[in-house]
Amino acid sequence: MAKNNDQDQFKKVLSHAKEYGYVFQSSEIYDGLSAVYDYGQNGVELKKNIREYWWQAMTQLNQDIVGIDAAIFMHPTTWKASGHVDAFNDPLIDNKDSKKRYRADVLIEDYCEKNLQKANKEIAKAAKRFGEDFDADMYRQTNPRVMGYMKKATEPTARLATLLEAEDLAGVKALIEELEIADPDTGSKNWTDVRQFNLMFGTKIGASADTATDLYLRPETAQGIFVNFLNVQKTGRMKIPFGIAQTGKAFRNEIVARQFIFRQREFEQMEMQYFVKPGTELEWFEIWKERRMAWHNSLGMGQENYRFHDHEKLAHYANAATDIEFDFPFGFKELEGIHSRTDFDLKAHEEHSGKKLQFFDHEENKSYVPYVLETSIGLDRMFLAVFSNSLQEEKLDGGGERTVLKLPAVLAPVKAAILPLLKKDGLPEIANEIIDELKWSMKVAYEEKDSIGKRYARHDLNGTPYCVTIDHDTKEDHAVTVRDRDTMTQERIAIKDLKSYIEKRVSMSEWLKKI
Amino acid sequence: MAKNNDQDQFKKVLSHAKEYGYVFQSSEIYDGLSAVYDYGQNGVELKKNIREYWWQAMTQLNQDIVGIDAAIFMHPTTWKASGHVDAFNDPLIDNKDSKKRYRADVLIEDYCEKNLQKANKEIAKAAKRFGEDFDADMYRQTNPRVMGYMKKATEPTARLATLLEAEDLAGVKALIEELEIADPDTGSKNWTDVRQFNLMFGTKIGASADTATDLYLRPETAQGIFVNFLNVQKTGRMKIPFGIAQTGKAFRNEIVARQFIFRQREFEQMEMQYFVKPGTELEWFEIWKERRMAWHNSLGMGQENYRFHDHEKLAHYANAATDIEFDFPFGFKELEGIHSRTDFDLKAHEEHSGKKLQFFDHEENKSYVPYVLETSIGLDRMFLAVFSNSLQEEKLDGGGERTVLKLPAVLAPVKAAILPLLKKDGLPEIANEIIDELKWSMKVAYEEKDSIGKRYARHDLNGTPYCVTIDHDTKEDHAVTVRDRDTMTQERIAIKDLKSYIEKRVSMSEWLKKI
Repeated sequence: MAKNNDQDQFKKVLSHAKEYGYVFQSSEIYDGLSAVYDYGQNGVELKKNIREYWWQAMTQLNQDIVGIDAAIFMHPTTWKASGHVDAFNDPLIDNKDSKKRYRADVLIEDYCEKNLQKANKEIAKAAKRFGEDFDADMYRQTNPRVMGYMKKATEPTARLATLLEAEDLAGVKALIEELEIADPDTGSKNWTDVRQFNLMFGTKIGASADTATDLYLRPETAQGIFVNFLNVQKTGRMKIPFGIAQTGKAFRNEIVARQFIFRQREFEQMEMQYFVKPGTELEWFEIWKERRMAWHNSLGMGQENYRFHDHEKLAHYANAATDIEFDFPFGFKELEGIHSRTDFDLKAHEEHSGKKLQFFDHEENKSYVPYVLETSIGLDRMFLAVFSNSLQEEKLDGGGERTVLKLPAVLAPVKAAILPLLKKDGLPEIANEIIDELKWSMKVAYEEKDSIGKRYARHDLNGTPYCVTIDHDTKEDHAVTVRDRDTMTQERIAIKDLKSYIEKRVSMSEWLKKI
Repeated sequence: MAKNNDQDQFKKVLSHAKEYGYVFQSSEIYDGLSAVYDYGQNGVELKKNIREYWWQAMTQLNQDIVGIDAAIFMHPTTWKASGHVDAFNDPLIDNKDSKKRYRADVLIEDYCEKNLQKANKEIAKAAKRFGEDFDADMYRQTNPRVMGYMKKATEPTARLATLLEAEDLAGVKALIEELEIADPDTGSKNWTDVRQFNLMFGTKIGASADTATDLYLRPETAQGIFVNFLNVQKTGRMKIPFGIAQTGKAFRNEIVARQFIFRQREFEQMEMQYFVKPGTELEWFEIWKERRMAWHNSLGMGQENYRFHDHEKLAHYANAATDIEFDFPFGFKELEGIHSRTDFDLKAHEEHSGKKLQFFDHEENKSYVPYVLETSIGLDRMFLAVFSNSLQEEKLDGGGERTVLKLPAVLAPVKAAILPLLKKDGLPEIANEIIDELKWSMKVAYEEKDSIGKRYARHDLNGTPYCVTIDHDTKEDHAVTVRDRDTMTQERIAIKDLKSYIEKRVSMSEWLKKI
């Protein structure tokens, strides 16, 4: 389904996620909380498995990478040092008539998107008119009406980027007025000035009005690694190069939060900061690009669904940066960032804390502030990538079709469904014996209701890689039928071999070897 | 060490936790954040392993328990329904001279504690004076001076409980004045009235002043389960009785946060809500008491270190409640709570949301709001229980002593240290081959520096259950020496058997069978 960049397909992803207990709207009984989601009984397992697959690949396969788990609450000076207090802003604009608030950049992007859609519509109409010989690219570059739309679809974005780069907020407002952008809800063009709005959530710690401290909920997990750099290096006796990995929640008060779990106000990151000798960072940048792509490819979701997107404009702290983009139902979007962050963060914390954050290099016989390579992936985005890519509709050989959730088996919430053919004749008892054998090392489900075909179909939709059926022959041959979710083939397996048969195909230790 | 309720021993726990990368003060380079901690490279693994041991025991061994992962942000009405907006308060009092703020109940408890210490000091003095025949209990009940101290040590606590129960804050202030309690810092007795202070952290979501919503950081994870009860029950086709498990962060703006990670402002809970037919809840209460204690005992930390403490006064939502207390370095304290919460929460959410939260029972042919059994354990407290209990000082047979961190092997961060006897003769290469064999299924460490004895000692302190030494004989016999952390015995094991030798002793699937 991920192949088809279509709103309808995305809706199927959303409703399937809810219907099969993967993702629920947060606080749904209270009509929800915007851009916040809860993970259901299957979602929590998929999310845990993705997190664990990343964690083990980082900290278990690499002797030079260790983890930490820093708190969400950090000393407020952290965010002064990192630049978030001063520069972690969105440009907002209010409509004076409707009193509604918008992200100024999103208004302009939406304007461009609409014009792109108009251009595509014209092209589609022409294609219909001209038939087989139609050359869409040629038409886009020569038809005056389409050219007009294309200009309106691209120029404003470029101008916006320049204005934001120059922090020219008056220019952003002028651009909105020039494009005659109206409040999408009311059509009013009566706009306030554009102002910057900080995206961090604030709170207060401590009880007394005098002594309460303003805190932020961390907007990223990376800083928890930087402030602990020396503690880990010293107590872990780490030598450069080495890495620190962390997974955890981060919070951003997004004004425009769209696209389901892709952009949430509360989300989870999986970040690794790799500390290297200054001057070697660009070599390590290439190594980590390769390693991270190998991790993605090991899941078998199709190499064609990933691409690198190098940053042309670099953030102030970076001297190289790329995104790994994934083909989501709404097109290629950032899934992971790989950044060469130089010594910006550690130096900033040195300045603000007055503490040295340096490594003494015995080979070089000198101390230095290490350079940092960062790999940063959104766990919720990875969840959406896996889930949307796995939800597939298939035509069956014998006619008909099926919907199946082809999750990589290592990530599937339930590894095997144990199904007695009938609710009697001792078959449920055998099923339970099998569960008592398997449950120590994997999550299994038991189901005795409905026909076997219906139960297979349900577990296809649920993403369960293996269905194990106990039938009357089982009592004679001590074997069961194992049905594969993806190929729908069935194999007769001796009960004594069942555990290793399934483990070989679903266990993390086996999948990690594919990286 | 847990045996010895001694402040010095507790200090050893704290410094060992820092020195070996288990727990760091949060934002330490900025001089820390009160009552917030970060978990270091070993701490994160111990914490993950405890969480996973709980999770698998709940959701993998029980077919009738599934998980969820609800967001920290919830709709604010949730906390109105749960009672936290109105009743989740601490009684605070300010000193007018010093402008310092205190928990009124803690001032009174400290007063009692001091008198208890005075009584104990008198008794100790008398014991010295009287020698062998001294009967401490008799002395406590007959010596007038000691009796006076004991009265001051017990009566105020009882009166405080009655006053708080009656929400008589003026009475609490009067009690403080009657006892002539002074500001511990300045000695001033010039107090304000006592007021209730809500312990929830607040924040605002959304950008516009008009539309921003006041949110709370959840003070407990349980409500995320209750609001998702129907979603999970329906999409997971669950039948009563069934349970929903969750682990995650919660936040409380504690005024007095003491005892290291025992009481933090940001902490993690592991909660399971088990939904049952009304009227059966007290049977299930007993079953869950037994099951949870079996889980604890499976870790082998000594049955004598646990005890049940039944609540005499029940919370407004409960009809039975007990704590599992553990013998921490500062005495027996609550580690886990098991509560029969009746239908209080689901009914409250029905009222506040206007949605039915009921289960249709086909056997009974009617709908009802289920009753709820809760098991709630603090992950950080469990960490402290495991860590403090495991840190032991031992006299060695040959004289001398050692400090060793005897973590249950299933919870240990690093399962095996792979140690070439020398840095040459091909021994490091064999060590790396062994690592390449083991790393897929467990975390291992490599060390080549210092003598084998020093490396053993370091891994004793680190909590690593097995040290694997590669020596010159290894090249001949293809075997290694495995040294056991706890018994210090050494065994020669063929390299081909090493993985299964260690896995059998450390893997979660093996340990789960002990429950």
